[in-house]
Amino acid sequence: MTMTMIQKLKSQVPQWLWRPAKWSLTATLIGGLVFLFSQGTAFAQEADEVQYHADIVWTIVSAALVFFMQAGFAMVETGFTRSKNAANIMMKNLMDFCMGCCAFWFLGFGLMFGNSGGFFGTSWFAFGWQQAYEAGGWPFTFFVFQMVFAATAATIVSGAMAERTKFSAYLIYSVIISGLIYPISGSWGWNGLFADYNGDTAGWLENLGYIDYAGSGVVHLVGGAAALAGAIVLGPRIGKYGPNGEPRAIPGHNLPLGMLGVFILTLGWIGFNAGSTTAASTDIGWIAMNTLLAASAGAIGAMFTSWAHFGKPDMTFAANGVLAGLVGITAPCDSVHPLGALIIGSIAGILVVISVVILDTVLKIDDPVGAVSVHGTCGIWGVLAAGIPFFANANYAEDVTWGQFGVQIIGALAYFLWPFITCLILFLILKAITGLRTSAEEEIAGLDVGEHGNVAYPDFVSAATDSEQS
Amino acid sequence: MTMTMIQKLKSQVPQWLWRPAKWSLTATLIGGLVFLFSQGTAFAQEADEVQYHADIVWTIVSAALVFFMQAGFAMVETGFTRSKNAANIMMKNLMDFCMGCCAFWFLGFGLMFGNSGGFFGTSWFAFGWQQAYEAGGWPFTFFVFQMVFAATAATIVSGAMAERTKFSAYLIYSVIISGLIYPISGSWGWNGLFADYNGDTAGWLENLGYIDYAGSGVVHLVGGAAALAGAIVLGPRIGKYGPNGEPRAIPGHNLPLGMLGVFILTLGWIGFNAGSTTAASTDIGWIAMNTLLAASAGAIGAMFTSWAHFGKPDMTFAANGVLAGLVGITAPCDSVHPLGALIIGSIAGILVVISVVILDTVLKIDDPVGAVSVHGTCGIWGVLAAGIPFFANANYAEDVTWGQFGVQIIGALAYFLWPFITCLILFLILKAITGLRTSAEEEIAGLDVGEHGNVAYPDFVSAATDSEQS
Amino acid sequence: MTMTMIQKLKSQVPQWLWRPAKWSLTATLIGGLVFLFSQGTAFAQEADEVQYHADIVWTIVSAALVFFMQAGFAMVETGFTRSKNAANIMMKNLMDFCMGCCAFWFLGFGLMFGNSGGFFGTSWFAFGWQQAYEAGGWPFTFFVFQMVFAATAATIVSGAMAERTKFSAYLIYSVIISGLIYPISGSWGWNGLFADYNGDTAGWLENLGYIDYAGSGVVHLVGGAAALAGAIVLGPRIGKYGPNGEPRAIPGHNLPLGMLGVFILTLGWIGFNAGSTTAASTDIGWIAMNTLLAASAGAIGAMFTSWAHFGKPDMTFAANGVLAGLVGITAPCDSVHPLGALIIGSIAGILVVISVVILDTVLKIDDPVGAVSVHGTCGIWGVLAAGIPFFANANYAEDVTWGQFGVQIIGALAYFLWPFITCLILFLILKAITGLRTSAEEEIAGLDVGEHGNVAYPDFVSAATDSEQS
Repeated sequence: MTMTMIQKLKSQVPQWLWRPAKWSLTATLIGGLVFLFSQGTAFAQEADEVQYHADIVWTIVSAALVFFMQAGFAMVETGFTRSKNAANIMMKNLMDFCMGCCAFWFLGFGLMFGNSGGFFGTSWFAFGWQQAYEAGGWPFTFFVFQMVFAATAATIVSGAMAERTKFSAYLIYSVIISGLIYPISGSWGWNGLFADYNGDTAGWLENLGYIDYAGSGVVHLVGGAAALAGAIVLGPRIGKYGPNGEPRAIPGHNLPLGMLGVFILTLGWIGFNAGSTTAASTDIGWIAMNTLLAASAGAIGAMFTSWAHFGKPDMTFAANGVLAGLVGITAPCDSVHPLGALIIGSIAGILVVISVVILDTVLKIDDPVGAVSVHGTCGIWGVLAAGIPFFANANYAEDVTWGQFGVQIIGALAYFLWPFITCLILFLILKAITGLRTSAEEEIAGLDVGEHGNVAYPDFVSAATDSEQS
Repeated sequence: MTMTMIQKLKSQVPQWLWRPAKWSLTATLIGGLVFLFSQGTAFAQEADEVQYHADIVWTIVSAALVFFMQAGFAMVETGFTRSKNAANIMMKNLMDFCMGCCAFWFLGFGLMFGNSGGFFGTSWFAFGWQQAYEAGGWPFTFFVFQMVFAATAATIVSGAMAERTKFSAYLIYSVIISGLIYPISGSWGWNGLFADYNGDTAGWLENLGYIDYAGSGVVHLVGGAAALAGAIVLGPRIGKYGPNGEPRAIPGHNLPLGMLGVFILTLGWIGFNAGSTTAASTDIGWIAMNTLLAASAGAIGAMFTSWAHFGKPDMTFAANGVLAGLVGITAPCDSVHPLGALIIGSIAGILVVISVVILDTVLKIDDPVGAVSVHGTCGIWGVLAAGIPFFANANYAEDVTWGQFGVQIIGALAYFLWPFITCLILFLILKAITGLRTSAEEEIAGLDVGEHGNVAYPDFVSAATDSEQS
Repeated sequence: MTMTMIQKLKSQVPQWLWRPAKWSLTATLIGGLVFLFSQGTAFAQEADEVQYHADIVWTIVSAALVFFMQAGFAMVETGFTRSKNAANIMMKNLMDFCMGCCAFWFLGFGLMFGNSGGFFGTSWFAFGWQQAYEAGGWPFTFFVFQMVFAATAATIVSGAMAERTKFSAYLIYSVIISGLIYPISGSWGWNGLFADYNGDTAGWLENLGYIDYAGSGVVHLVGGAAALAGAIVLGPRIGKYGPNGEPRAIPGHNLPLGMLGVFILTLGWIGFNAGSTTAASTDIGWIAMNTLLAASAGAIGAMFTSWAHFGKPDMTFAANGVLAGLVGITAPCDSVHPLGALIIGSIAGILVVISVVILDTVLKIDDPVGAVSVHGTCGIWGVLAAGIPFFANANYAEDVTWGQFGVQIIGALAYFLWPFITCLILFLILKAITGLRTSAEEEIAGLDVGEHGNVAYPDFVSAATDSEQS
């Protein structure tokens, strides 16, 4: 490489060979360096590609867990209501997913994640394979993850409207919620998650800096507010309130099934919250930790509250306490520290008991499984908790000031009012046109036979209490 | 580096040091370049290794989900049959996995993936740790994934033969299906998936270009055809057909349990289809999307078909519609576009209702849970759908011509005839030697007591309809 | 680059430009090399980072599966006991997770993984977000994985103490087991797993070379020994032993639910064992394979043993056989070959039947679901099996000599004696202070009503056998 070497080399090479040898030597050296540079880029690309594959794996695994929450919701609703409506509830939970899934592909995904002026998207409707493939393939994975989220909102509503809603009306409104109402408000807080594919747009709440990592507001409050509208329009189940308006307990028919649903929901929620990274990243660790701590604290909070209030630790309140803690931690799952998660979960657990009691005895709104309290009340709490500086971890310490709390209030209002008002209108229209509620005879006999011609447990003798209660 | 620099250097270095200094300088430069080249290779290897680890993670997670399908099948079969056979069915579903798992290691895996002349493999029987480890470890992961697939085929059969089959005969035939019948035909379509380890061989159907990405034919049609053979040899359950041959409904005893099984199966199917990449890759996204769209469309198709036919949307048909859509999309899950998935699922949902009605009322073959229709009929549909050009996405557009459709017909014939004929022979032999069916007394009393000495629900009073019906 | 080139260059460049040109050329060359070196490091870091992300994904997915085992334990315990205690058992399984989870964060994790002198840790108590984040984030993920393990130990105990334990006493002892007893002995075998974060300390059993990959001793034997202490202190359920001390079978009320629990546990165990890599690595493949083979062999072993002993293949023994095989393979899941896994599982399946019979008829210890036999007896077997040279795969061939077997005996003794003695003391103290057992009236009426005011199945008529039996 040094002059001396080159001169030595020159003296040993025949004259006629020197020129080509010299140039080839130079070319080799330059080529080597170019190769190294290009390789460098290649290595970087390869690691990026592997990271991308890991992102897909994590997001699809999370989506699978979130899908499984459909089973959890179905179990909770079925187990905590009466046996005569068990097939109907299972069927509703299956079909709202199926109808919602198709509606979300045709319409919802585009409204939520398409090119948006801040209020709703206008592209990516019924997108084809080619379009998503040419965009690098991510839209497929992202769609799957968002689709299972969209199906959650409609399912939440079914809990509050259980045991008295017409199946045909249910199909219609679950499509409208999954395909229209949820995606529009969803775009306000999450449109920017698809910014790389929608021309870098974002929703108006995102532009305000609204924090809702996995959707206490975007998903749960929307479901809870729609559930409240449904429960109000439907009115209570026959026999729920006595002649003097005193509330009567209508016990669920299969508590182990309901509790299995709670375990399944908690499992799925790991995907719901930690999967909301939609990337294989370090955040997954603390989100999962916060999620399980808040769920635990929620159950403990609800158990002791119900113990104090009713004298015994009621199983169904502990079950709803887990869900309350989970709904509460959903918005702030990424932004808080473990102690924050514990406090947020505990408060959610206390809130859900208070909310259930108030709805049941004061407002006299019949919500068979407590969906409004779990998803609505604790959804609001989750949105607000994300704006409380004390809970924020160091990553968010600069963002979460009391100004942020103001933004969270706006978000909570938006995610309560939009679904509540639109669903109130929707249910009133359905009531007027197709009818929203089954006949009293059918309700008393059970929706399984009336709506589906099924009997959920034909081999077991029904207890007299059941027919009396109806 | 330039001559001037070297000369300057030379003038500043004592004479006696110049020679070693010059050589060490040169050596450093050359060494550095060599280091960079070798590093380059090292980086590439490291990214490859991480990709390999991600492949293992994804494949084992998928295998876990597919394993969980065993629970789903058990729930569907148990929930949709009578309470007096519930323990027997749960036990059969557990044991066919356990027996099949061992049989697949001893015999099946080698027949399916060993060095093959096109018809069956002849190596990798009962492989040891050393052999798989020295092959880089992939055979362990691949075995786990394929083992849980093999267990599926036997389980499908149990559904069609429920409520009347001797447990001992069941154990024998489930071992033979998992260890012999399934792996041999499996090698025809999938032997090449293990090409890197079996000396680059492939099955005869693969050589024809047969498309069956996750096994509508290889797994489901094989199970469905074997189930048909079993249901024919066994004959219908006592009380299934009236004195004039009119079919009677024998309702399932626990519809929520059955529906939970459907949710679990759908969850598992994400692993079944998207896991069939056996790699962390972009395909996972669209396979998962196609899978969920087809499942949804299947439920919708079956629900509306049953609604039109029976006047009410039957829950069990919607449940089977999901499974029908899933079986239909299994072969073409990678090769079609979303719209194709929706259409394939819808048609599967319609087909399953028609098929169940024809088997029940025209052919008078008693298939308690519709296994033949779900896995057989829709398995054929899935295999054929993979050969229809209109459904193919751009990745497969060149391959899927109408010539491909011909290959798919050959595949469907092969995957129907092989298991149907071999299982017909197997069941006839078992019938002759050990007996295939329990005594009429035992069937009426229930197989739980007769075969296992168990009672599934001792704390609940049985409904009279149950004893009447038997 | 050669002298000639430089001189040519020099002759073509104006004199005043030569000096800067020469230096910039040199700088470019040196800069390029420095860039390449630094890039090299960057690429390596990036691949490492992706590997780290894959590790997190795998560990959290595994943790989710292990969490789901809580549902499996709940199902097994509920399904295999009586309906009048179903809500109580579901509630206990939920709350021991929730209480244990909080206790493990406050106290247990630090005792188990903090800086240790060999017997217990003294740092990382109630760790904050900042501390774990600055340590690179791994402590979050590791905590989640270890937390779901800790919850398992308490849950195991609840099975042996089912149907007669006060709920309030249960809450207290489950917190003490998860927060104190389990973590202390856990540190003996696993403290070193957190060596990078606790100042490179390890437990005394680790220092001896004790092998317990996923915790046959650390988790299951601890749970089983504590369960034995509890069952002894509590005494048998009313009606379990006749006037002459003859044992009576008290059949479980919902066998399909119990069997679903077994499927869920097996699914979760894939995460339990293969997740114990806490890394995306090749080991995952053979651990998953060993785990499923041992589970299968366990079921087969138990089924045939019970078939031979009782004349029929009992479903509940097959179910416990799966769990026995899984407990047995937990310690040696990484260190054995497939044939070893099959033998270990088979022996565990045989052992569990023998152990259940001896406890039931000879020792007259009432363990409603066989928790002592499954987790205690087979836990000991698993610990010992990890020290048997014949089973070891080539990776461990040098380590696993008969000297290793001696270490495993010490480990088994330690993991039996510590929880047995401490829990014996704990339960005796609780018995003296708060009372450990419900009143006879409450036990006969069922704990659901007495402890929680719940009825698990209000819509079904209870069978007379139930009230007679109580």
